[in-house]
Amino acid sequence: MNPITQTQRTKIRRGPARAVFDREMLYQIFDEARMAHVGFSVGEQSYVIPMLAWRVGNQLYIHGSRGSRMIKALTEGAHSCVTATLIDGMVLSKSAFHHSTNYRSAVVFGQFRVVDDPAEVNESLKLFLEGIAPGRWQNVRPPSEKELKATSILAIELEEASVKVRTGPANEDQEDLDLPVWTGELQLKQVVSGMVPDDNTPAGTDTPDYSQAW
Amino acid sequence: MNPITQTQRTKIRRGPARAVFDREMLYQIFDEARMAHVGFSVGEQSYVIPMLAWRVGNQLYIHGSRGSRMIKALTEGAHSCVTATLIDGMVLSKSAFHHSTNYRSAVVFGQFRVVDDPAEVNESLKLFLEGIAPGRWQNVRPPSEKELKATSILAIELEEASVKVRTGPANEDQEDLDLPVWTGELQLKQVVSGMVPDDNTPAGTDTPDYSQAW
Repeated sequence: MNPITQTQRTKIRRGPARAVFDREMLYQIFDEARMAHVGFSVGEQSYVIPMLAWRVGNQLYIHGSRGSRMIKALTEGAHSCVTATLIDGMVLSKSAFHHSTNYRSAVVFGQFRVVDDPAEVNESLKLFLEGIAPGRWQNVRPPSEKELKATSILAIELEEASVKVRTGPANEDQEDLDLPVWTGELQLKQVVSGMVPDDNTPAGTDTPDYSQAW
Repeated sequence: MNPITQTQRTKIRRGPARAVFDREMLYQIFDEARMAHVGFSVGEQSYVIPMLAWRVGNQLYIHGSRGSRMIKALTEGAHSCVTATLIDGMVLSKSAFHHSTNYRSAVVFGQFRVVDDPAEVNESLKLFLEGIAPGRWQNVRPPSEKELKATSILAIELEEASVKVRTGPANEDQEDLDLPVWTGELQLKQVVSGMVPDDNTPAGTDTPDYSQAW
């Protein structure tokens, strides 16, 4: 698989040992995060907006209300940055300074395009829902003409990107090694903690199992 | 408690019913998230960088390598945006369009200041570590002069902010209510999944219990 495109913008200056140039890892991070923080600016002011984001091949899709400030700025060609971050654990060290975080992060630069081909709109929405709840698309009412008109779908190419991954223990100073302190990783994980029906679920309906997606 | 300052920037235009003006909720979101995505721009290009972030009173602190692109831009007065997001669940609807997410998000606008008072630096680092691992500060080696010189600590006032919270079931269309589909929430939660010692933990050391912090 071809590596990620490197530019001045994507060059990792801090912690270069954590840089990863593997497109597979870039994809994994966006797939697992399922949400991303989208940055754009209006004049000098930066904005960072959390969005559900889903990947299809080498593209990352988002959707939003047509006419929102963000959708407007992005469709007008803002030089955007989209970041997804997974925190895997807190790294506990012998010294205050060498505490760290194990994480995987992906940062993509570029300009979004508006998805206006109805077939691509439909297919991307289907893949979005199927990524959250496999099999669900065929059981729910599909989007109406009016609903589609109210929504913009945008896509950005996963091309100019930085990926950073940190794993492992703290980088201790030699002279701290004998301190009698527990060191290691406090591991963190996002889990599905429940499937709670609402009042509109018909009595007797089986709870679907979407665990394979999570 | 005084409400959050409202401006043109913070005005919630999409989903205004989800807007919250309660400072307590603003604080809770940053406290629980422990990380935030910091946005700034250099020329027309936006950057969004994941950072550990911790709150002390009405201020949010971050730290980074002195001289990094981000620290440089922020200390030069970039009009920044700092966003923390907690995803509480996926909201499953009778229709594709009304699927949604239950979440809590906080967006703060402003300019960072450099923390250069040694007492504030020390106190903020202590509170940072104690927020992750209560009691740990007194057992580990404190930061050295040299380590402190390599690090910049920055703070932003939690003043001009937007907070959005979504809870509850999908907003179904009346005509979809009879569809025989399970609807409700796929609840998500971040959990501590393990405390794994590394090779530098002396044999026989008790595993600390930081569960009260998480």
